[in-house]
Amino acid sequence: MGIDAPIGVFDSGVGGLTVAREIMRQLPEERMVYFGDTARLPYGTKSKDTVVRFSRQIVRFLKTKDVKAIVIACNTATAYGLEEIKRELEIPVIGVIDAAARVAGAVTRNGRVGVVGTTGTIESGMYEKALKKYNKEAQVYGKACPLLVSLVEEGWLHDMITEEVVSRYLKDLEYKSIDTLILGCTHYPLLRSTFSKVAGEDVTLVNPAYEVAMELGELLDKKGLSCGKGVAKEKKKYEFFVSDAAEKFCNFANSILPYDIERVKQINIEAFEAEETESLFVTAGMAGQAVSKRR
Amino acid sequence: MGIDAPIGVFDSGVGGLTVAREIMRQLPEERMVYFGDTARLPYGTKSKDTVVRFSRQIVRFLKTKDVKAIVIACNTATAYGLEEIKRELEIPVIGVIDAAARVAGAVTRNGRVGVVGTTGTIESGMYEKALKKYNKEAQVYGKACPLLVSLVEEGWLHDMITEEVVSRYLKDLEYKSIDTLILGCTHYPLLRSTFSKVAGEDVTLVNPAYEVAMELGELLDKKGLSCGKGVAKEKKKYEFFVSDAAEKFCNFANSILPYDIERVKQINIEAFEAEETESLFVTAGMAGQAVSKRR
Repeated sequence: MGIDAPIGVFDSGVGGLTVAREIMRQLPEERMVYFGDTARLPYGTKSKDTVVRFSRQIVRFLKTKDVKAIVIACNTATAYGLEEIKRELEIPVIGVIDAAARVAGAVTRNGRVGVVGTTGTIESGMYEKALKKYNKEAQVYGKACPLLVSLVEEGWLHDMITEEVVSRYLKDLEYKSIDTLILGCTHYPLLRSTFSKVAGEDVTLVNPAYEVAMELGELLDKKGLSCGKGVAKEKKKYEFFVSDAAEKFCNFANSILPYDIERVKQINIEAFEAEETESLFVTAGMAGQAVSKRR
Repeated sequence: MGIDAPIGVFDSGVGGLTVAREIMRQLPEERMVYFGDTARLPYGTKSKDTVVRFSRQIVRFLKTKDVKAIVIACNTATAYGLEEIKRELEIPVIGVIDAAARVAGAVTRNGRVGVVGTTGTIESGMYEKALKKYNKEAQVYGKACPLLVSLVEEGWLHDMITEEVVSRYLKDLEYKSIDTLILGCTHYPLLRSTFSKVAGEDVTLVNPAYEVAMELGELLDKKGLSCGKGVAKEKKKYEFFVSDAAEKFCNFANSILPYDIERVKQINIEAFEAEETESLFVTAGMAGQAVSKRR
């Protein structure tokens, strides 16, 4: 595997595109294979066992694309599966939690940090655990916000109803006098301005998508895996795969990525369950179901 | 299979419990096996192919419980899968759409009927198709309401925010002067009072959960499959299965069912994939997706 191998990025659906977007911006030379598990989203309300099983299937798929590193661009999958997947793979694997926790631990002045995310992410307590590594004194206050993903996917990004929902969710954290707030779900950076307005200017927002792209760049440099300028430019640069509804994914992606994607392939991710599926899949070829965006 | 065999009821998650509740009320002698696909919910945003594949796996599971009839207690799965599943089974199969459409077609005075539901249900156009069977003159106006399931599952049933969201969704239908509104998602009966308040007293609400339980009773009578009084009372009456997060399901169920359920079993529903998937998929021209995990 050369340095021009792609980076594998996965999420339960479209949320991880905020991470993909940061990687495109910060590491413009790198190739990327993105997988969104749109047949089984959301992960945030599901159990650890189920999320880990789904994540393993996806990792098996990404390995067939010869990725040089994997970014778990989903807070729930990071919270539940990062450690196990790391242990099972020989290539670097990073999640969205650690980098954000490090930054939050460094920027907080009063040591009171809030975290908003899905039920799964908040219940896992992973942000708290990660923050304590970097700032032993930090007090961490989590708040699950189950409605926000639906509001983002409905497209109500700058909307009175969304603002009211965010206000209600942040009420608990206000009482804790937090001065730093981690947007602990990959959809939430799309509500950044609403969070900023509701939380007020005294609260510093931390965006894990931005931080994990930074960390990825440093990690690739350290491991000698960074793509040199121009190395990948001849090859197909970005590939997108989903487990369902490729066209809908495509539309959402084109509303948030810096350029329009042309093609999203649909695959049957459940087929990556058993050990022997890898060879079966290779034999079956990678025809996939191609859905081109109509222009 | 005797008349004391259970009725199989399935849904993508907890929504179908509004149907289960009606069956318990209207057909108190009947036994029931309920399956909620909590690992892969929601179905409303997923494609037809995926929802049909999930439904087939569930039907295979229900058949292992020797059910005498199947109720698809999910509007999306009914819209996408009822006809195909009916064709493949020898036992009676009914969905939530037809009975509600028949009643709506009968009660409308001005022939203008609104339908609210998930994106999948509305885009399928199935309510319109069913209504036209019973009332050729009817004009049907659909409105997808993707946020409402999340609001119900958040427990914000009698809430200002929910009322505002419902108002926004019903705005389009108001302009159409509907006099009848079908609550075309199994979660929505739990928002019945909000719908009633927002839509006003001139609009008749139709609850498919209630209507399908009525239809089921008639169908069982007609086929000689109704359970006699006391026949099933010695046996375990209601069984609940889910694909994930049994405890959370149990809590939700106990908040809406007329009595507390004691036990919910979690199963791996993906293991009920058809043996012949590969050939089916290849024939359908989708090579590359066609890898069955069990041989």
